[in-house]
This record gives sequence, structure tokens and C-alpha cells, in this order.
Amino acid sequence: MAQKPSIPKGTRDFSPAEVSKRTYIIQIIKKHFETYGFQPIETPSFENSETLMGKYGDEGDRLIFKILNSGDFISKVDDVTYSSKNSASLTQKISEKALRYDLTVPFARYVVMHQNEIDFPFKRYQIQPVWRADRPQKGRFREFYQCDADVVGADSLLQEVEFVQLYDAVFTDLGLKGCTIKINNRKILSGIAEVIGAKRLLVDFTVALDKLDKIGEEKVKVEMMEKGISEGAIAKAQPLFEMTGTASEQLEQLKTLLANSEVGMRGVYELEEIISTASTIGLQSAHLQLDVTLARGLNYYTGAIFEVAAPEGVSMGSIGGGGRYDDLTGIFGLPNVSGVGISFGLDRIYLVLEELNLFPDSLDTSLDVLCLNFGKGEGLASLKLVSTLRKAGLRADLYPSDAKVQKQFKYADKRNVPYVILLGEQELAEGKFVVKNMKTGDQKSYDLDAAPQFAEAVKFDF
Amino acid sequence: MAQKPSIPKGTRDFSPAEVSKRTYIIQIIKKHFETYGFQPIETPSFENSETLMGKYGDEGDRLIFKILNSGDFISKVDDVTYSSKNSASLTQKISEKALRYDLTVPFARYVVMHQNEIDFPFKRYQIQPVWRADRPQKGRFREFYQCDADVVGADSLLQEVEFVQLYDAVFTDLGLKGCTIKINNRKILSGIAEVIGAKRLLVDFTVALDKLDKIGEEKVKVEMMEKGISEGAIAKAQPLFEMTGTASEQLEQLKTLLANSEVGMRGVYELEEIISTASTIGLQSAHLQLDVTLARGLNYYTGAIFEVAAPEGVSMGSIGGGGRYDDLTGIFGLPNVSGVGISFGLDRIYLVLEELNLFPDSLDTSLDVLCLNFGKGEGLASLKLVSTLRKAGLRADLYPSDAKVQKQFKYADKRNVPYVILLGEQELAEGKFVVKNMKTGDQKSYDLDAAPQFAEAVKFDF
Repeated sequence: MAQKPSIPKGTRDFSPAEVSKRTYIIQIIKKHFETYGFQPIETPSFENSETLMGKYGDEGDRLIFKILNSGDFISKVDDVTYSSKNSASLTQKISEKALRYDLTVPFARYVVMHQNEIDFPFKRYQIQPVWRADRPQKGRFREFYQCDADVVGADSLLQEVEFVQLYDAVFTDLGLKGCTIKINNRKILSGIAEVIGAKRLLVDFTVALDKLDKIGEEKVKVEMMEKGISEGAIAKAQPLFEMTGTASEQLEQLKTLLANSEVGMRGVYELEEIISTASTIGLQSAHLQLDVTLARGLNYYTGAIFEVAAPEGVSMGSIGGGGRYDDLTGIFGLPNVSGVGISFGLDRIYLVLEELNLFPDSLDTSLDVLCLNFGKGEGLASLKLVSTLRKAGLRADLYPSDAKVQKQFKYADKRNVPYVILLGEQELAEGKFVVKNMKTGDQKSYDLDAAPQFAEAVKFDF
Repeated sequence: MAQKPSIPKGTRDFSPAEVSKRTYIIQIIKKHFETYGFQPIETPSFENSETLMGKYGDEGDRLIFKILNSGDFISKVDDVTYSSKNSASLTQKISEKALRYDLTVPFARYVVMHQNEIDFPFKRYQIQPVWRADRPQKGRFREFYQCDADVVGADSLLQEVEFVQLYDAVFTDLGLKGCTIKINNRKILSGIAEVIGAKRLLVDFTVALDKLDKIGEEKVKVEMMEKGISEGAIAKAQPLFEMTGTASEQLEQLKTLLANSEVGMRGVYELEEIISTASTIGLQSAHLQLDVTLARGLNYYTGAIFEVAAPEGVSMGSIGGGGRYDDLTGIFGLPNVSGVGISFGLDRIYLVLEELNLFPDSLDTSLDVLCLNFGKGEGLASLKLVSTLRKAGLRADLYPSDAKVQKQFKYADKRNVPYVILLGEQELAEGKFVVKNMKTGDQKSYDLDAAPQFAEAVKFDF
């Protein structure tokens, strides 16, 4: 009967210590989402398959987890489909629902379905798990949280500035100082492809350019040529490989390069506006950096593109990203609604904070006070005392049995409890309780009536 | 291309207002879980099918959502199974994972898998969604949250007392005063079945008895007879239909009835101990009520059984329930670990608070300050001001475009913003901003430098 239990690959159990740390990050992100005027929504874990399928490319479609129809699902499959024994066509007949793959498509669906209740511009945030049937590997899971903030119905560049500030506010508050917020604009990439005469090869061009940091100039050029971009075109793009200086210096170089591209110049203008406004207001600890090689989500973004890198010295992929998309809700029948949004990579932020030892020590404490249990008579008085401490807001517990004192102290140690209360026969007779400070070893005695004062003193101590 | 979007039946989108209210309830439950010493864990949304299947009875197995294997799943089905065209046997070949059905079985699996890292007694709470392919109806959904707290590895009755106090603390804090916490003990039900000579028909007996409130004494007796319980047995059980008085009076009646049943008398003793300890310490607003007809989860609980009813006058099923189970982890190979736990019914609590108008008004406000937008020059000063207010912790926003003032005020109204800031050309020239209190209509002018003081004043006002 007994099974040796396990969990599906790519999924995780989170222990109390891990949940505390994840909650700590989420609470800080949430706090700043709210001070920036974003409102929370939640959407169902599964959507109708047609809502999700076809929105993430063929690879995405394959990675979407499908839910089997309930009941006698096979009886509803026609004979022709069944005898074809083809997984793809059978899937359509036996599965109507699928787990969400990201938060953006469900958000677009939400906006369209609820457009008459929403007051635009609509600033929403959403922190929920998503699922992908990806091959699990280090730092990549089949179930993970996304933390997204988006604005729809506002095309002002002030939104982009706000997102730069929001990244800065969150990472500063997390103690993660010196992050780099990279920024680019899809229109600049379009402009470059236009002026070098490789408009049709825009995707190949940017995919190759995106690798400049990793594989270097020569190899990027080889890849471009392999994709059919002419030597002449690559030569015209040479300034990109030599961009140097501050953001404003780089913008000047781009103005020369893109002088003949209307879309390119619009991109330069947008970037200039965002960067200058952000730097006028000032950032707390992050650096804003123009990066013309940044091309994430190219098929999707139409304006600004963001990506956040952890402080130098931490080897970790991007810990956040986002951008502007001009027509996301169009697929659901509501065209011309501009949106812009960013996402925080919870799992990676967790790893970075762990590596830099930035989680507050207080997260290690899940219980403020443990009251030892000396048996029935004292137990009742102890339970009363613990009740009083809980009402005062302390996390307090009574050890559930009158086990040996040593065992109870060991439990207190393991739970990392700062204060242990002893209320034995003698203390009870004197109407007192003794508090042992587990760090210093000091003991102090209080009247039972003075429990609320003790609670205040403990709270003050934190 | 455009699809008219919808969501799967039995699932819900939650608007910002709904998320706020749900979060309010969850935060209060969480706070008390923590003051009572419970620690959070999280488990994956899907488990290996063998972890879940067979744990909830045949009906439960049918209601579990199964996830289709990825890739070319059909090619892995043998011909014999495929040609059988039988949904049940095919499911086993094309699905290995399933969405969790409750939080208790995954918790048992967690305890067994992590038994070497856990310090027992282990008090855990878990607040996560679960999924059931139930027929959707009013108040019953296919995706819903469970909020569970359980202790494993502690068999003291103090745990039961703590759960009574915990219910009282949460419902009192939610403003839901006058809830009834019904309590019974599985051992009493066993004892009754024993003394009336219907031991083998225990389940039928208790299922019928459970309906006493709804269908009355006569119909309960008819149902018992239909199930094969003899007239003589029912006559012996007559005292149950006539139980009156306080808990201690009822306990005395049970002592007479169960005098010859060892298990029954143990149940009486346990109940007596829990009720007397709880009433010595005292409850804040809930009533603790002995209810011998309470039989929920009979196949599962072995000791105390709890159920919470909303205050009188509110027609709603139970808003919480739980009990003690002696051997939950045995199914996963760890026998003899006693557990006891309770659950809060989030959706029903939500409906009750809504009905009684108990949600705080402050939840309606998602933005403290809206700064109107008067165009580019003023926009930058406004963004600076808004940044300062956000750093001071206010939820503040700048309207994203210089739309007509009327339109901007309308948006402020709809978002229910208490303060609107005007920073036009004239104010900017004077280094001031004007704050309009949207409730009173009063306007007040502040120096731009005094923004932090204004923020403090607003916070003080809440």
C-alpha cells in the first residue's frame, strides 16, 4: 500500500524558510506596484485552449500543459480521428483546457472581456504561477511565478519612465544596489535593418546582434552572413559594433546612422525622451544603460525594450524584462490598445539575494516565543499566557506535551526562537513567569499580569 | 482572427476590488496562523497521479483534473489499450500528472518526503488553490482556494483547544462575531453505533443523523430503517434526538448513554477536556457548541470534528471545518503520525462578509493621490512630485496624458481617489501644488518642498 512519494520533475516543494524568503520578495514587489498605482487582478490557472494556442509560436504551443477532458472523453472522439492515432489531432478532441503559459495573454483576454468595467488607462499587476512543459534544468522550472505590471490604454512615454523608476525602487528596496536597467527600442532595430537594406531579415539580424556580449563581433558577423545578410549591409551596420560613451553620446551616433530612417529616428527620439526624463528625476541605485543589441521579445514589442541585469560580479541572466506592445488585445477583438509592461524574475532574484546574503536575518525567525510545557496544571496557565501574547501580536506557542525539558529546549533551538518562557510549579505558585533570552542566556522574571508589557518589550526589540 | 474570449466554466477572473477583498481575508487568516506558531509551506499545483488517485474515493478520482502528457503521447500507448477505446485505461497511459484536489494529501506527501528536515511537532499552514471537476453551481467552483492549518506529531488535546481559539481569533478579527464552532468526536459516534448494536452500519447511521437539522427526527429515522438499522437500535439511540442543555449537560447525558462503550467514553472524556479548557481560557466572540450529529469526513477523522457556522441569520453552509486524523501519512509509508487541522472556507467567508457589509471601506481605495497632467513642462514637475509621494509610501499616480481636466477628474472619481493634485502653469511658477480633497471639495496649497509633510498628513488621515 505504501508508496514512496515524489513530485513531478521541474516542480518544487517550498519549505517554511523558502516560503518566507519568496514572500519577502513578493511583498516588496507588491508594495511598489501599489505605490505606483497598479491594481491587482487574478485570472484562472487554466484557460480555454483556444485562448492560449497559437499565441506563443509553435514551440510555445508544444510547451503548453493541456488538461484532459473529464468523464468518458474517448467516446466523444470520432472514428476517423481516433484511427489516425495522431497526438496533435487527438489532443484537440480530448482536451479543451490548458494551464496558463504566461500572464500576458490571459491579461489581454481579461481586458477584452471586462472592457466595459475597466477605467482606462488600466494599470494592473498580477503575481501568479505559470506552467511550461520545458525540459527542466538549473533555474528553469515547469511551475514558476511571474510578477507582472502593465498599463494598457496609455501611450505616453511617461509610462516607460515610470517603469524605469519602478525597477529602481524595487531593487533598491531589496538591497540589490547597482543593477543595470538596459533599454532599447524596437523602432531603432527596425531603422537599422532599414538603412542597411536588410529589412526582411530583421529577426535574423537582431537575433545575431543580441549575442554580441557572449560571442563577440566576429562570430556575430559570421552568423549574419550565414543568415543571408550581405557583407555590404554588415559594413553599414559597423557603427553598432563600435558604439561607445554615455547614453547621450550613443544617441548622437545613432542619429547619424539612422538619419534616413523615419522609424529609426522616432526610436531615437523616444529613447532620448525616456532617458533624459528618468535622469532628470534621478534613480536611487540602478544604472540606466542604452543597449542597442537588446532585442528580447522582438515579435511582440513595438517600442521600448527593457532588461535588468544583476549588479556586476553576480553571474545570472536577466532578473527582469519588458517593453511596449502596441496591439496585444487585437487578437481578442479589441484593436489599437497600446500597452507597456515589465516583469520581475522571482526565482532569479531569489538566487541573487541568496548569493549576496541580502535576505534579512529576521526571516529566520518564525516564532517569537516558545512556552515550555511542564504538565497539566502549569499547562493551562501557560496556555492562558500564550493566548495573551498572541492577542498582543506575538507569534507564540506552547510546546504540546510535557516532554523532557532538554527536548523542548532543543526544539526551541531548531525553530530559532529568541525567547523561551518557563512557567513551572514554583513560578505558578508565585504568579510569575521566567523569560530566557536564547541569544544572551539572560533570564528575567515577570508577573503573570505583566504579560502584555512583556509582549510590547519583545516587539520593541525586533 | 479575432476570437470572442471566454473562460472555462467554474473558473473566475478576479477584479482589483475582488482581489483586495480576498487578500484582506487571507491576510487576517495568515496573521493568526502565524501568531499561533504555524509556518507556511507550498506544494506544486500538480502531483504525480499516483500520489492523488485512490485517496478521495471513486467520486474523488473522477473529479481530479488530469494533465495530458506532452509530446507524441499516443505513440507510447500499446495497441491493446488503444483498441479497447476505454477512457479509464487510456488515461493511465496518456496522463501521469494531475492537479491537486485538496491540500491535505499533498501535505501528507510533503511530511513523508521531508521527514528528516522537519522538526516535529510540525505546525504548517498552506493557502493555495485546488481544482475539482465538479459540476459548477452557485458558490461551487472548479478552482478555489483552501486555507489550511495542521499540526502533525502532537497528540495532546491542547492542539484541539488551540484550533477552537484560532477560529475565534480569526472570525473575531474579521468582525464576524457570534459564529458557532460546533464540535463532536468521532469516538462518540463509534460509541453510539456500538451501544445500539449497529457498529457495522456506522456510516449509514451518521450520514442519516447528520441530516437531523434539515429534515427532522421522523425522516432521519425512516432513512435509518431503510439502511437496515433495526427499530430496537433506533429506540436505543433516542436520547440523541432529545439532547438538550449546555455542553456539560449534554456530556452528562452522553455518559449515561455510552457507559458501556470504552471508545464512546474516551470520546466523552476528550470532548469534556477540550470544552472545559477552551471555556476556562475564554473565547472572544464565538460560541463553542457540542453537536453530536456532526459527522463530516467520517472516513477520515478519528478524534475531534469541527465545523463553523456563520452568525445566526446568515444562510450559508459551514465556513470552516476540520478534525483529528490519526494516520494520514501512513499511505505514504510513515505510520502512526497523529495530525489535527482546520480549514477556512475563503469563498463562503467572502460572501458572508459581503452580505453583512463587513469589509472595511478603505479597501475601496486603490490610489491615495492622483496628480492631474497639464502637459509637458508641468508633467515633469508633477512626475517629480509623484515620485516623492511614492517614496513616502503613498499610492500615487500621474494621469498619463494631458487630457481634458474634466476627463481626468472623472477618472479620479471612478478610481475613488481621495486626493487630487493640481500642478498647473501658475502653481509651477509659484513653486506650489494644490490638493483637492475629493470628499469635502476643500482645496489646500502646499510648497513643492513640503511634499513629504503632505504625504505624512495623508497617511495620518487614513
